[in-house]
Amino acid sequence: MVVTIIGLGLMGGSMAIDLKKRDFAHQIIGVDKDKINGNAALNIGFVDELCDLESAVKRAELIVLAIPVDAAIKVLPQVLDLIDTQVVTDMCSTKGSLLDIVTDHPKRKQYVAAHPMAGTEFSGPWAAISGLFDGKASILCDTENSDIRAVAKIRRLFEELNMRITFMNSKDHDVHAAYVSHISHISSFALALTVLEKEKNEKHIFNLASGGFGSTVRLAKSSADMWSPIFTQNKENVLTVLDTYIEKLNEFRSHIQDDDTEKLADLIKESNKIKRVL
Amino acid sequence: MVVTIIGLGLMGGSMAIDLKKRDFAHQIIGVDKDKINGNAALNIGFVDELCDLESAVKRAELIVLAIPVDAAIKVLPQVLDLIDTQVVTDMCSTKGSLLDIVTDHPKRKQYVAAHPMAGTEFSGPWAAISGLFDGKASILCDTENSDIRAVAKIRRLFEELNMRITFMNSKDHDVHAAYVSHISHISSFALALTVLEKEKNEKHIFNLASGGFGSTVRLAKSSADMWSPIFTQNKENVLTVLDTYIEKLNEFRSHIQDDDTEKLADLIKESNKIKRVL
Repeated sequence: MVVTIIGLGLMGGSMAIDLKKRDFAHQIIGVDKDKINGNAALNIGFVDELCDLESAVKRAELIVLAIPVDAAIKVLPQVLDLIDTQVVTDMCSTKGSLLDIVTDHPKRKQYVAAHPMAGTEFSGPWAAISGLFDGKASILCDTENSDIRAVAKIRRLFEELNMRITFMNSKDHDVHAAYVSHISHISSFALALTVLEKEKNEKHIFNLASGGFGSTVRLAKSSADMWSPIFTQNKENVLTVLDTYIEKLNEFRSHIQDDDTEKLADLIKESNKIKRVL
Repeated sequence: MVVTIIGLGLMGGSMAIDLKKRDFAHQIIGVDKDKINGNAALNIGFVDELCDLESAVKRAELIVLAIPVDAAIKVLPQVLDLIDTQVVTDMCSTKGSLLDIVTDHPKRKQYVAAHPMAGTEFSGPWAAISGLFDGKASILCDTENSDIRAVAKIRRLFEELNMRITFMNSKDHDVHAAYVSHISHISSFALALTVLEKEKNEKHIFNLASGGFGSTVRLAKSSADMWSPIFTQNKENVLTVLDTYIEKLNEFRSHIQDDDTEKLADLIKESNKIKRVL
């Protein structure tokens, strides 16, 4: 199968590597508006050639958008305009706004909205790795609006990546993604900003980081281009969960202020219940 | 050397394992007011015997307090009352209040305040592992108030655990620990509480957790007994950094509210500077 991947960063690149390795794609065509990224992808070898959007779409059987959601909102309708019988999917972390934009597109049925939940704190084609998606969840959204054969093809794609496939409607997806994933990133970005502002001595950060800072701040290395549009595209849900988060922090604040170790211990024990899940 | 360890949980147990393995201690006496913990430590085998506080202190050459800071504030003066020529150290995450309590103790010079910066999200004797301290930082505080031979002995202890040793005064230690380590834990506890409150469907948490939630929330599994007194003992510093953290979250909140992806991207890029250090 010829697969076109639009966006040759961490996500698109990691997908390309395994689709090729596992014989799902015999040829991968890459599209990237950034020439440095494109050339890197070609040199690393996870795409066979670079191409402009139009012919890349026309020559492929399956097209994957692996670009930030604000860019996908522009590019997805263009891709649907260009296709004949091809199937299109994407990898964006918010789904509602993207699906809204193509609701009435005549080729809507050939698009299957997907959110493969995988990543690292690194970005760009140099960050692409084999096995990134193995064992993780991929969420397919609003599949009742897609052609059944298109859904089957995209299922096979993510199964080839060894992903667990879950179905959800896009509104639910955006709520749950905000509740679990998006808030984690905000929490981590804000933590990095706080520590960088308060702790002027970087040697101390390094020395003291073994106290757990390293893992909570890992996500703060994530890409600004990817994350800033996610927060605004999923604004309502993100604000709701962010308000709850700030509320919980204020509960900690007031119990610390009151030297109330008992209520603090209760809060911590309550939070320990996350062990049930993770 | 005979070493007495008071508190047979993750920290004391992990230390016992490696002190014995690496021949620093030929005998380890354990003290724990919790009988289940004590028996587990004995059965696992990282202590050679259990003993009451008084004879355990008298029979050892070196005594390590591996208990939460609120307990250490009570037990440290008792231990100093009992010693003759022995050396005493501790592993608490806040140092100011503990050192204040023994400032005028006649045996103050035989105590060396230490904070080995290591841990996992697990607790209890069953969580004890070999290698926990390897490559991590251990901070010795206010060593000018300790006997030079006592400091040398505690240095050897932590060097045997393959730790990087740093010296700091206790006031600075508590400021930096709040700025880097304590805030990470509050951030993680509050995140777990938020997600548990908002996301009632645990299957979704599990499915969506590959989006980074797992690493930011890891610390939320940490022990309430250990952490609640840390926050109140280091109240002033913790509140200062917590206020900055809430302020940063509110900056995110207001830029999301305004759909200002540019200012969001600026904040994220600023937070990315944590890569310089970690």
